[in-house]
Amino acid sequence: MAKSTQLIDNEVFRAYATYTAIVLLKMMLMSLITAYFRITRKAFVNPEDTASFGKGESAKKFLRTDPDVERVRRGHLNDLENIVPFVGIGLLYALSGPELSTALLHFRIFVGARIFHTFAYLIPLPQPGRGLSWAVGYSVTFSMAYRVLKTAWLL
Amino acid sequence: MAKSTQLIDNEVFRAYATYTAIVLLKMMLMSLITAYFRITRKAFVNPEDTASFGKGESAKKFLRTDPDVERVRRGHLNDLENIVPFVGIGLLYALSGPELSTALLHFRIFVGARIFHTFAYLIPLPQPGRGLSWAVGYSVTFSMAYRVLKTAWLL
Amino acid sequence: MAKSTQLIDNEVFRAYATYTAIVLLKMMLMSLITAYFRITRKAFVNPEDTASFGKGESAKKFLRTDPDVERVRRGHLNDLENIVPFVGIGLLYALSGPELSTALLHFRIFVGARIFHTFAYLIPLPQPGRGLSWAVGYSVTFSMAYRVLKTAWLL
Repeated sequence: MAKSTQLIDNEVFRAYATYTAIVLLKMMLMSLITAYFRITRKAFVNPEDTASFGKGESAKKFLRTDPDVERVRRGHLNDLENIVPFVGIGLLYALSGPELSTALLHFRIFVGARIFHTFAYLIPLPQPGRGLSWAVGYSVTFSMAYRVLKTAWLL
Repeated sequence: MAKSTQLIDNEVFRAYATYTAIVLLKMMLMSLITAYFRITRKAFVNPEDTASFGKGESAKKFLRTDPDVERVRRGHLNDLENIVPFVGIGLLYALSGPELSTALLHFRIFVGARIFHTFAYLIPLPQPGRGLSWAVGYSVTFSMAYRVLKTAWLL
Repeated sequence: MAKSTQLIDNEVFRAYATYTAIVLLKMMLMSLITAYFRITRKAFVNPEDTASFGKGESAKKFLRTDPDVERVRRGHLNDLENIVPFVGIGLLYALSGPELSTALLHFRIFVGARIFHTFAYLIPLPQPGRGLSWAVGYSVTFSMAYRVLKTAWLL
């Protein structure tokens, strides 16, 4: 198994693995929060999901949108739009041989910003709290992409 | 090419590559199913997509939502929300040196659950079929994340 | 840092890193374009985002959908649906030891097709411009998946 553990023995890669797993688990948590609000607010989108509430009209009234459900779903989509580039570019960045301290700085700020973003979206906090945390995460990914392109450039 | 084939020579990584390619192709299939329903149901969202049906009002009536199209789109988004974490965490898991048999168990259950989930969503099957298949895939990704964090932990 | 730079020393992997960073940055650009249209069209979705426009009814009228905003958002989601498979399958493909020239052909066509797709969506160009560029990118990812499965196959 020597080959398979080479990368995981590298400290920068271990840091990447840790922060990526944490931020992807955070993103997965959005599914549970959506399910929680759908069930407590009784707001579903698929007819088969309301079957347990009875037949016909009595179940149909639960096929509706709810502001809280929609808010979590927007947070989830925003996660997808921002965490996917982090995971992809972060992997290339981790393999580009950065200093461990610099890499840790990038990963910590990104993951911290995305956790703050989720709270800012769900509470919700007044702007520009959410906007700024989005911009911080965005900038971190951009900074990593810059190093990847500088190191790997081959068009 | 020795360097580039190191990883692909590792059996766990080969298994990861196989199942990841399959489940990403399955996700891509959702685009084709959406296109199929948009064309057969004549339900489009972009004005330029209905231009071949004529000008003005005659084309405008095809700018509408259709329950079948929306259902496939929800299945597609659910794939994105669940397959993205699998691909990211699964890569780190495959590099963390698990036993081949354990890794195969994780990959097989995840991909099987997501294929079942697609059928459960599109047919649709009565609940809790879709919910359970979602939970199975979710748990597999969670189990892989646990091993990644235990092996790589570096905050 | 020898270990961490092994992959990045491989030419196919460097090409993959370059094109992946470019296409992920292009996808991230969609967030900025969405923000631009939201601000210039004054079309927001979260109440807290309109607080700077005043209180109560005067701010509420900016909680609305705008065709241009929705168009960019559809382009962004289409990017997610297509660029995620490219990044995942492309990584496995780059590690499967293809010829550099073949790999470059795949990466260049995909990234070119997705950049064209964005212009075709946002201008918008008449169909089948957008549809064809989507199909070209889709086919490239499919071709890479075929090689991955042929090389790595282990079920």
